[in-house]
Formats: sequence, structure tokens, C-alpha cells
Amino acid sequence: MIFSSKLIEDAVQEFSRLPGIGKKTALRMVLQLLRMDVSEVDEFTGALSRMRHDIRFCKQCHNVADSEVCIFCVNPGRNHSQICVVETIRDVIAVESTQQYSGLYHVLGGILSPLDGIGPEQLNISTLHDRVKSIGATELIMALSPTIEGDTTVYYIARQLKDLPVTITTIARGIAFGGELEYADEMTLARSIAKRLPIESYVSMNGK
Amino acid sequence: MIFSSKLIEDAVQEFSRLPGIGKKTALRMVLQLLRMDVSEVDEFTGALSRMRHDIRFCKQCHNVADSEVCIFCVNPGRNHSQICVVETIRDVIAVESTQQYSGLYHVLGGILSPLDGIGPEQLNISTLHDRVKSIGATELIMALSPTIEGDTTVYYIARQLKDLPVTITTIARGIAFGGELEYADEMTLARSIAKRLPIESYVSMNGK
Repeated sequence: MIFSSKLIEDAVQEFSRLPGIGKKTALRMVLQLLRMDVSEVDEFTGALSRMRHDIRFCKQCHNVADSEVCIFCVNPGRNHSQICVVETIRDVIAVESTQQYSGLYHVLGGILSPLDGIGPEQLNISTLHDRVKSIGATELIMALSPTIEGDTTVYYIARQLKDLPVTITTIARGIAFGGELEYADEMTLARSIAKRLPIESYVSMNGK
Repeated sequence: MIFSSKLIEDAVQEFSRLPGIGKKTALRMVLQLLRMDVSEVDEFTGALSRMRHDIRFCKQCHNVADSEVCIFCVNPGRNHSQICVVETIRDVIAVESTQQYSGLYHVLGGILSPLDGIGPEQLNISTLHDRVKSIGATELIMALSPTIEGDTTVYYIARQLKDLPVTITTIARGIAFGGELEYADEMTLARSIAKRLPIESYVSMNGK
């Protein structure tokens, strides 16, 4: 692609650094910015710049926060006896958006993956023991990837916390609502038959 | 989607204003910015801000420019007797990227479309007559959409310029290279048979 303006070229170049954005998409975005008022573009770049400069990570749960501690950890209305352990900030948004969970979170920042050089030191695991102990959490809900790495991480954390009176659970795996049986992988289908539920709990989940 | 950070929420909101960007894609981009160094994000927002603030439109051809006149119009090495008339800046980039055209451009800013309230006054048409006359252009290549509106625009411009000794041509329509006959629409296929070329010109185009 040949540009007649260095300003446009630089802007396209910067947009292409984002995931899944090729040169053509980047150009479409730049031309959209060009159609917007200068004040709107200032708002756009200002919001992104502020976000990157002012964002903080909660010193308790490592979630993104606008201050030292995130809005979940400071909220006395949330259930401080439950901690949902997730890999990333994105998982916090996903769980929170269900509006069915009112406990706390703990963001690991990834999962154990020796092949990628990710050991316990690279993750927010060491702080978890102290946190569970100090707030007296009684349940740790592991919401990690259903992979070997995810399972390894669950077992590792369970071993680290075995001296504490905390129950460790994992989120249910099974056929998704609206999912069709014939397209489910065999492992998921087998597990979902083995872990079948009495019909009362099914009805109450749908009725919720 | 529920966010625990106003900073993140605002950034996602701003990204969603771009064409084809939904909330999920916007979040992916914001998280990518979060992973980048502060200095890299400053470069990103700086390039976009500079682009919007400092961009100018060439006073001769209305293409984007970094100064009063664009790099094509000031370049004595380009063929000043040919002007390629296009709808948008994006079309300039497309034609220029072929590296087969060395004339000048004229960006209309759209095409005549009475139903959308776009008349000659909304487009950069009035300046075209003076421009053709003053630089003594001998050919105007119309590279507009192959639609009724595009054809109307071509005829309108041709009528405006009929007192000047300038040849008006349109770019060739036909089956695209690599395109399969069975998928071509009937009008294109019919036109491409009617406007068939002697084999010598075909060979020279491929050999180029």
C-alpha cells in the first residue's frame, strides 16, 4: 500500500499493531478517525492514553483497578468467603457479566506452562495463600482452562493451600446451553453424562 | 459486559465507535494496549492525534496531504496532462498502489446521489474545470463506481468540461484476473465480451 501522507501512513502503521488488524482494516479505521471531529478524536486518544497511564492493578486480587484496590475487593456487599480464581482480566469480565457471582476474584495472570517458561513465580500464586488465610475464605472456585496446564495449575494451588480450611471447587464442564450433542467433543459429552444432574437442579437453573 | 474499571470501560467504548468493531473486539484491543509499554501506547495515541490535527487536504486535488499541496501535485516528475478522478482518498491509495499510474488525481469526495442529498455543490466538481484548464490536462480518467450514480457523475462532469480540449476516459470493466467466468454477473460478462481485446494487448498486460 502506497500512501501520499506520512501522517496517514504512521497512523495505519500504529493501528496494524493491534491483534487481528491488517493494513486494510487499519486504513478503514484511520479514514473513520479522519471523518470524525477533532474533538471526538481527542476524546478517543485521550481515553486510551488515560487508560494506559492511570490503570492500576488491585494489590489484593491483581484485577485491573482505577485505584489501589479494585471495586470488588473494597465492596463489603460482596461475599468475601468465596474467591473465583481466573487466568486473566478478561475472565473476570466474563464471569462478572453473568451477574450470577457475588464473591471475590483472584487473577493469576496465566496458568502454569513449563514449556512456555511459565512457573509459579511468573503467576500471582504466592499471594493467594496469605489472602485466603487473612480474609478467611472458605471456597476457592477454580475457573481455569480445561486443559492439562489448567488442571496442573488447579492441583498445584490445591497442594499449596492444603493446610487451610478452604474447599476447592472447579466450574462445571458440559454441553453448552443451545449446544447440539452431535457437535460436542467426546470427552465433554462423556463427562457431562457422568456428572449428570437431578432434574430439579436443571429446572431451577433454567428458571433463574 | 460489566467492567470493574471506568478507565477500561471508557477505552472500550471509544474503540467501539470505529467501523466494524464490536464490544468484544474493542476489549481485545484495549487489553492489547494494556500489555504494551506506556511509551508504545504514547506513540500509538500520538500518531493518531497528530494525524487528525495536522492532516490537510491538497488545495489542488483534495487528496490528503501533509502540507498545502500533496506530494503528487508538487511532483514535476508526474504526468501533469493526466488526471484520474476518484471518489475517495482510499481510491487514490488503491490506484497508486498498482504502481502503474503516474499522472495526477482529483478526489471528488463522493458521487452525485440526489436521493442522499449529494449534488454537485457537495462534491469537489466546481474546481475541476479551472484545474483542467490551468494545467492543460489532456486526459481525464474517470475511476468511479460502476453504478447509476457513478455513470451520472461521469456524464455530469463531461458536460461541465465540454468546452475544454480534454479526452474523458473510464477505467476498463471486465472479469478480474483470477476471476471465474461462472461467478461473474451477467452485465460484467456481457460487457467484457463486447469490449474484447486483441490478443497482443492481453499478452503485454500479463507480461508486464
